[in-house]
Amino acid sequence: VSLRIGIDLMGGDSPPSFLFEAVILAAGQTATDVRFDLFASDEWCKSLATSHHPSTKECLARLEFHPCKEVISMGDAPLLAVRRKKNSSLLMGLRALKNNLIDAFISAGNTGALLAGASLLVPKIPGILRPALLAVLPTKKRPMAIVDVGGNVTATALHMVQFALLGLAYCSVALQRSQPSIALLNVGIESKKGTRTHQDVYNLLQTLSASSSPGPELFRFLGNVEGRNVFDGHIDVLVTDGFAGNVFLKTVEGTASFMLDLFESYFQKGPAEPKHISNIDALKREFSYTEYPGALLAGIDGLVVKCHGEASTRSIYHAIMNAITLVESQFIPKAKEWLCQR
Amino acid sequence: VSLRIGIDLMGGDSPPSFLFEAVILAAGQTATDVRFDLFASDEWCKSLATSHHPSTKECLARLEFHPCKEVISMGDAPLLAVRRKKNSSLLMGLRALKNNLIDAFISAGNTGALLAGASLLVPKIPGILRPALLAVLPTKKRPMAIVDVGGNVTATALHMVQFALLGLAYCSVALQRSQPSIALLNVGIESKKGTRTHQDVYNLLQTLSASSSPGPELFRFLGNVEGRNVFDGHIDVLVTDGFAGNVFLKTVEGTASFMLDLFESYFQKGPAEPKHISNIDALKREFSYTEYPGALLAGIDGLVVKCHGEASTRSIYHAIMNAITLVESQFIPKAKEWLCQR
Repeated sequence: VSLRIGIDLMGGDSPPSFLFEAVILAAGQTATDVRFDLFASDEWCKSLATSHHPSTKECLARLEFHPCKEVISMGDAPLLAVRRKKNSSLLMGLRALKNNLIDAFISAGNTGALLAGASLLVPKIPGILRPALLAVLPTKKRPMAIVDVGGNVTATALHMVQFALLGLAYCSVALQRSQPSIALLNVGIESKKGTRTHQDVYNLLQTLSASSSPGPELFRFLGNVEGRNVFDGHIDVLVTDGFAGNVFLKTVEGTASFMLDLFESYFQKGPAEPKHISNIDALKREFSYTEYPGALLAGIDGLVVKCHGEASTRSIYHAIMNAITLVESQFIPKAKEWLCQR
Repeated sequence: VSLRIGIDLMGGDSPPSFLFEAVILAAGQTATDVRFDLFASDEWCKSLATSHHPSTKECLARLEFHPCKEVISMGDAPLLAVRRKKNSSLLMGLRALKNNLIDAFISAGNTGALLAGASLLVPKIPGILRPALLAVLPTKKRPMAIVDVGGNVTATALHMVQFALLGLAYCSVALQRSQPSIALLNVGIESKKGTRTHQDVYNLLQTLSASSSPGPELFRFLGNVEGRNVFDGHIDVLVTDGFAGNVFLKTVEGTASFMLDLFESYFQKGPAEPKHISNIDALKREFSYTEYPGALLAGIDGLVVKCHGEASTRSIYHAIMNAITLVESQFIPKAKEWLCQR
């Protein structure tokens, strides 16, 4: 077996069968040396393993079920859950990752518990104080990495500079961009905008981008950016604290949903035209965050992907395929190497 | 003269002639007892007062020009500008408001300077520690007030509760809604989400909404809301600190612009259809914040409206008409009365 992907089937808002369906889809699209470790309750393990669906039967040999005694739910207090529910699917999966039994771990469960559990069990990458959630969003030109989208509700200037480095490592290694550009999400473009922390991050990034001599610059610091220009397509890494980043990400989703509603109502005024309906459906998919491949838990020495709680089968499938690509391209060791050379 | 509206023609990103055009438009739509006090540089005052345009000549008697020696620009440091440029259009306008020579003051200039100047010159409403910017946004159902959208980059829990009260006063008095609903912009809906400050605001609003006995509840506290559900239309007042609020507002603008681009490119794949082009243009207007009537500087004992720096003639016109409505309906005294009874 050359590659093992661990998946937490429990704890999300979607039923485990939705996530299982994504696993079967991914199995059908990957080589037979890719195996799947599924963490779920006893009942779900039994019911899914005995499925009579032909495509399930076909790949059953590539699935390993790990029955779990407990489940961490969305409403559980993260730290308490991590301390008390040691036999939950989420923690069993993280332990498997820590012990190198799996190469990546994917969960659509309680974000706080996943972060707390990963921070506790998986070592941090040297030089990183706080892991952060990294998401990739489309823009008018090329995709952009944004970090932190909710790993930490508060952050110091130093934490945020580390988020920037994690974003750069991702852009350099996973997206293979040279000299990526960085911008700081702020309330205006002038250097004195925002809180004292934002001003400090601005100065630190300014200094770092100028000091990476000899040789070419490590990255280009574009300064502050406002939400209204974020999608122009000139930014590779958008740096933000987890609170503003999470508000940003969810506001994009909310605005998109609102606009699609408006689009539909505008176009429904005329006679129904199938072409336009399919256009709107395509736009809906493009902007539905439940369709996204999930956010990377950046900063730990292991590959953990957090999917949207209401993630669709399609998005879990994307998350699995994306995780496989990252494992195959040796993302974690290369990102560590990249970071250690800075 | 029953009503005087002061307008700062300088300091925005648009030329003073754009703002002047909006004044002429508004004059054409209002009774002759509405007068306009225009604050601009000597040169602009001269050039605009001698305009030969028929619609300008017609209302010239209703315009009073106030030539100013200085201009506060977008790049000026707010506190420094307020201290040093006493004869700027922005500060002369605020002084006129303070001295009751005008009933409202509108500016598209430096936000920080407008806030600092207003805080310095115009008394605060009793019980309000920090003025905040209040904007009104469309949603899937009815418009929603959001406060603070950038008046303060940091805020304590008590400040934020006062923002909530300012939003409630606006909804009750200006929008005439009874028992408005309030939600707190946060990273999740559970009460423990966000920073300590957000948790405190949650508890304070929870307690306040329950304690307004006897009689009906003053407001309904809906708890935390995420950016993705903000536009559902169930919220009357969205409470946020100025940093997250500003990120929120500008992200809505950026996402809308991105989506309209995508939408256009989708529909350009087929043959051009005039009906769809006009639909898209209508949507663009609906989501362009340069078209918005501006944000209210809530919490001071005077009517100050901040327009977008790149505000269009149309949006300045809306801001003027909106300010006239607020003056005529005695918004400030009624809001003060509302707040003093709480």
